[in-house]
Amino acid sequence: MTSLTLASSRRIRSTPYKRQVEKHGVSGYTVVNHTILPKGFSRSVEEDYWHLREHVQLWDVGCQRQVEVKGPDATKLMQLMTPRDLGNAFVGQCLYAPLVDHNGGMLNDPVILKLSADRYWLSLADSDVLLWAKGLSYGLRLEVEVSEPDVWPMAVQGPKADDLMAEVFGQAIRKLKFFTFDRFDFESQPLVIARSGFSKQGGFEIYLDQPKLGDRLWSNLWQAGQGLEVSPGCPNLIERIEAGLLSYGNEMTLDNNPLECGLERFCQLDGSINFIGREALQKIYATGPERSIRGVKFGQERCPPCSIPWPVRIDDEPVGYVTSAIWSPRFKTNVGLAMIERGYWEEQQRVLVEGEDRVVREGKVTGLPM
Amino acid sequence: MTSLTLASSRRIRSTPYKRQVEKHGVSGYTVVNHTILPKGFSRSVEEDYWHLREHVQLWDVGCQRQVEVKGPDATKLMQLMTPRDLGNAFVGQCLYAPLVDHNGGMLNDPVILKLSADRYWLSLADSDVLLWAKGLSYGLRLEVEVSEPDVWPMAVQGPKADDLMAEVFGQAIRKLKFFTFDRFDFESQPLVIARSGFSKQGGFEIYLDQPKLGDRLWSNLWQAGQGLEVSPGCPNLIERIEAGLLSYGNEMTLDNNPLECGLERFCQLDGSINFIGREALQKIYATGPERSIRGVKFGQERCPPCSIPWPVRIDDEPVGYVTSAIWSPRFKTNVGLAMIERGYWEEQQRVLVEGEDRVVREGKVTGLPM
Repeated sequence: MTSLTLASSRRIRSTPYKRQVEKHGVSGYTVVNHTILPKGFSRSVEEDYWHLREHVQLWDVGCQRQVEVKGPDATKLMQLMTPRDLGNAFVGQCLYAPLVDHNGGMLNDPVILKLSADRYWLSLADSDVLLWAKGLSYGLRLEVEVSEPDVWPMAVQGPKADDLMAEVFGQAIRKLKFFTFDRFDFESQPLVIARSGFSKQGGFEIYLDQPKLGDRLWSNLWQAGQGLEVSPGCPNLIERIEAGLLSYGNEMTLDNNPLECGLERFCQLDGSINFIGREALQKIYATGPERSIRGVKFGQERCPPCSIPWPVRIDDEPVGYVTSAIWSPRFKTNVGLAMIERGYWEEQQRVLVEGEDRVVREGKVTGLPM
Repeated sequence: MTSLTLASSRRIRSTPYKRQVEKHGVSGYTVVNHTILPKGFSRSVEEDYWHLREHVQLWDVGCQRQVEVKGPDATKLMQLMTPRDLGNAFVGQCLYAPLVDHNGGMLNDPVILKLSADRYWLSLADSDVLLWAKGLSYGLRLEVEVSEPDVWPMAVQGPKADDLMAEVFGQAIRKLKFFTFDRFDFESQPLVIARSGFSKQGGFEIYLDQPKLGDRLWSNLWQAGQGLEVSPGCPNLIERIEAGLLSYGNEMTLDNNPLECGLERFCQLDGSINFIGREALQKIYATGPERSIRGVKFGQERCPPCSIPWPVRIDDEPVGYVTSAIWSPRFKTNVGLAMIERGYWEEQQRVLVEGEDRVVREGKVTGLPM
């Protein structure tokens, strides 16, 4: 199952950039948050990978839906939802934050934008956090409004992103610090723009709150990028795996806790803050997680796409599973993200990976990023 | 955008029937509840439609994920989540039930299975009700366990469904009443089977709780159906629209209330039961809904697939929008489901429908089913 047909309906939401994306020859979509996400254009994933590392790309990431939490109890609800200490968060800050349930199981890993003292956006991975936040606010009788605003992110990623964005939004945007946001005018409309994105190549995310401007936003960025070898793009699986960027639903599900997902630095477990799942995470922390996310490099020939977890073994003993994998043209081996059991997760540990093609490939555990 | 490529990953979950579905030449998938749903096989939607009305089909509806609510407060939580009176529900009953938030906005429209006095499944349309139920139970400190069990529904639909099912599960299954379930053995394992399904042609849904049996369950049904012209299938858009079967995310979203969705008969608004959103729905009920779901028959040539709401007008006045549409070979016109404003929703009302191909087609409002 490498490529399948996706039928269209209102239920699978379109984005304000769709016309442009199709004009540029999108080759396929996946679905995130009930919304289309381009999976590729005319070039191969490998060509896109090299391009992303050298130039600049426009990504339709409208699927990164926002949940807005607003009102007198907004900060209280936000802190209840994440183990990350939001006490020192400032207006204009972006905060990557695990969300967990009362068992410490991962519900999502959004970027939180603090818009004002009592207003936040959660820029989401693939689950309906809207329903979680609504359920909590109803049950706890909190004075907050929880909604999904009409906001459609678009990403500009790659080392030339600053040059491109400065053309369209002015030179001041170069000074925007990593994981902060500010408002910049486009056609006299102030747009929230953050220095962030789902790659390690640098760049920005534009939180377009006026869908009718989507087509022109894309085309203006496209025009401005003509001297910069701009290209359409999308999150790149090779780059994402090498960078150790996790994807909710792939590397982690409700069955995983943030400590085994390598997110300990975003978990304040000293009892100074109150959040849902604290006791569960403190207990796991006391003994240490049973498994942990690692990189794996394996095999000398291309592996198939990874659509189910692949067993990782040492001889005949199961020691974990690979959750995402692809050929890396830079390392000239397959690279994967894997959940590896304690005792086997040291770098250079030799392992066997059995793909869904039933081929067993020899490999080694690596740190992240690779 | 009629057909797009869907890339595979763990995040888009496979089902226990995938191998069989692919063996039978599935032509495409969509995604529901983070899970694949076949969209067609070798025949056209029209051929499938005629076949479904005359014979019997096997459907992989593993995407109809279950949320299990279990424990001393299970009935309390279930009743809070739906305006439908569950007071007289009996063990073994299936209950179609709107779920709404505190504003009366639709969150999902599952079939509820009452498994025992303190244990329910919600067989879901496309939204993460797991997070809603978890948020409520946490916030309200209810004594319930909320989980997603490892259950993968498969449907057997069409007028010959009884004959086929009796071959595999025994003659007793013919006596199962509409919207009830019981347990029937397959390879000595008792499986929950309901007389239900997302068509009006009759049939069953098998709630397989042992994924490893999925492949054999499909192949045994397939073998048993060889004299019955059995075929692989999937929810059929023509049949669904003509039958007035609604699809969450298409005909209704959080912005719609159950009264405008034609679900008044599932809303107990006399104050005898307590549920979330009661005050909001009572208020809407008092003045009557502003709009209502209707059928529309329009045009004499095939319309394109409907991927965004299509405006419905009378002359230049907007009076609603079409949310699903397709050519009906039986009525020899396009058929659609539409949300129509009050004052314009009477049968035979003449309307204009503007498709995403910009073609304006003449049509008429109809009742449902058509």
